[in-house]
Amino acid sequence: MLPSLSGATRIHLIVGDPVAQTKSPAGLTREFSARGVDAVCIPMQVAPADIDAFMAAARRVQNIDGIVVTVPHKLAATRHCDLLSERSRALAAVNAMRREPDGRWSGDMTDGVALVAALRAAGVAPEDRRALVVGVGGAGSAVALALAEAGARVAVHDIDAARRDELVRRLAGWSIAVGSADPAGHDLVVNATPLGMAAGDPLPVDAAKIAPGAVVADLVTKPAVTPLLAAARERGAQIVTGEDMFTPQAGILADFLLAGRA
Amino acid sequence: MLPSLSGATRIHLIVGDPVAQTKSPAGLTREFSARGVDAVCIPMQVAPADIDAFMAAARRVQNIDGIVVTVPHKLAATRHCDLLSERSRALAAVNAMRREPDGRWSGDMTDGVALVAALRAAGVAPEDRRALVVGVGGAGSAVALALAEAGARVAVHDIDAARRDELVRRLAGWSIAVGSADPAGHDLVVNATPLGMAAGDPLPVDAAKIAPGAVVADLVTKPAVTPLLAAARERGAQIVTGEDMFTPQAGILADFLLAGRA
Repeated sequence: MLPSLSGATRIHLIVGDPVAQTKSPAGLTREFSARGVDAVCIPMQVAPADIDAFMAAARRVQNIDGIVVTVPHKLAATRHCDLLSERSRALAAVNAMRREPDGRWSGDMTDGVALVAALRAAGVAPEDRRALVVGVGGAGSAVALALAEAGARVAVHDIDAARRDELVRRLAGWSIAVGSADPAGHDLVVNATPLGMAAGDPLPVDAAKIAPGAVVADLVTKPAVTPLLAAARERGAQIVTGEDMFTPQAGILADFLLAGRA
Repeated sequence: MLPSLSGATRIHLIVGDPVAQTKSPAGLTREFSARGVDAVCIPMQVAPADIDAFMAAARRVQNIDGIVVTVPHKLAATRHCDLLSERSRALAAVNAMRREPDGRWSGDMTDGVALVAALRAAGVAPEDRRALVVGVGGAGSAVALALAEAGARVAVHDIDAARRDELVRRLAGWSIAVGSADPAGHDLVVNATPLGMAAGDPLPVDAAKIAPGAVVADLVTKPAVTPLLAAARERGAQIVTGEDMFTPQAGILADFLLAGRA
């Protein structure tokens, strides 16, 4: 059940294609309500060919205060921000936009921040961790940068070596190096590949080399305990699931979206 | 309280400027819920300069099924419909649009239909009534046409005679004639002017000439019983208030908006 909806309710959108699976309409609206803010988050399914015209129109709607951006529009959204956070610029991606009091729109990329928050919630401080992030797509890139911002020394690995090297080059200002599928020497391992979603997937890293004292996190949400997490737990490692990572997300997005209110 | 909101909830908009005062977000969403439809009605405040770009973008959003249009966008909305009802074309106005199963958008103008429904709910059949509609702005024009469609013989009056004559010309296919501020000979009188909202407003018609057996309706909602209605009641006429007319509106809009679903 949701709070009331009236003509005066402030509007936030989540824009993606598809959108039916997104949790933000329920999660963010509940978060707004818990903070006493009369606002809702509404799904908008916009095809890639339509995204530029849609964003140009949406940012001029006077009761829209924020826009959450999901796949496949995170790059396109950067073109519709007047102000981009340093990490959004570095990642060429935006997952949240808000209207500032002066009318300009600012964009940020908080996907990786949720993992850092989930780690802290699990009692794991990222500072000085030697982290290995496997998979440097949108989510992995954001996680690698958020961990580096939080003080970890990060290595990244991807089966596409060119994509991995390109990310390391692009994020040259942060402590991010080229890694491999070997987790030896790392006390934090994050799977940001889809491996583990399908039965019979190979493990994203050589699980036999995970240190017993390490922390292993997986962005895959189904199954909650992936084969990688099961193997890590068996070796005595602490695990953080994809679901753990999604828990803080609504709060992080609400913090960003509501900060623009005059 | 509202039903649940998820990524799969279907979206209807109400587009206006301003929108904070509109009742459709609450009323229509409640109506959808009562019909077991997982859909919400969301307010969108769009400035006149932005309406064409907005409508062009909104009609391509794949989970938007309908758009309610209010002041000042009812004329502009006609440009964004692939199909217009006969009355929308005649009035050059649209108050509701829906996506048809084939992807085209159709538009209708149901503002006047609500008055006819309110009359019927009050036990007043419009067929063969001799109706006088005073004020031929957007609402008055729609009411005059809806009454004529329902079988009444309608006369219209406006202090702007040119505007009145232009409406009679435009609606030449229906039983709509030029009237005056004299309600004698009419057994249904509708005030569609703003007169009665402000203390000290003159009455829109000569109340002393209202027949005791007549029905008098007023589109003004505040006060609920306007000076015209008070005078009419005193003369023994039956009255229908602006609030009575708004009661059936959500149901009429929902009927139209949901008829497009494949």
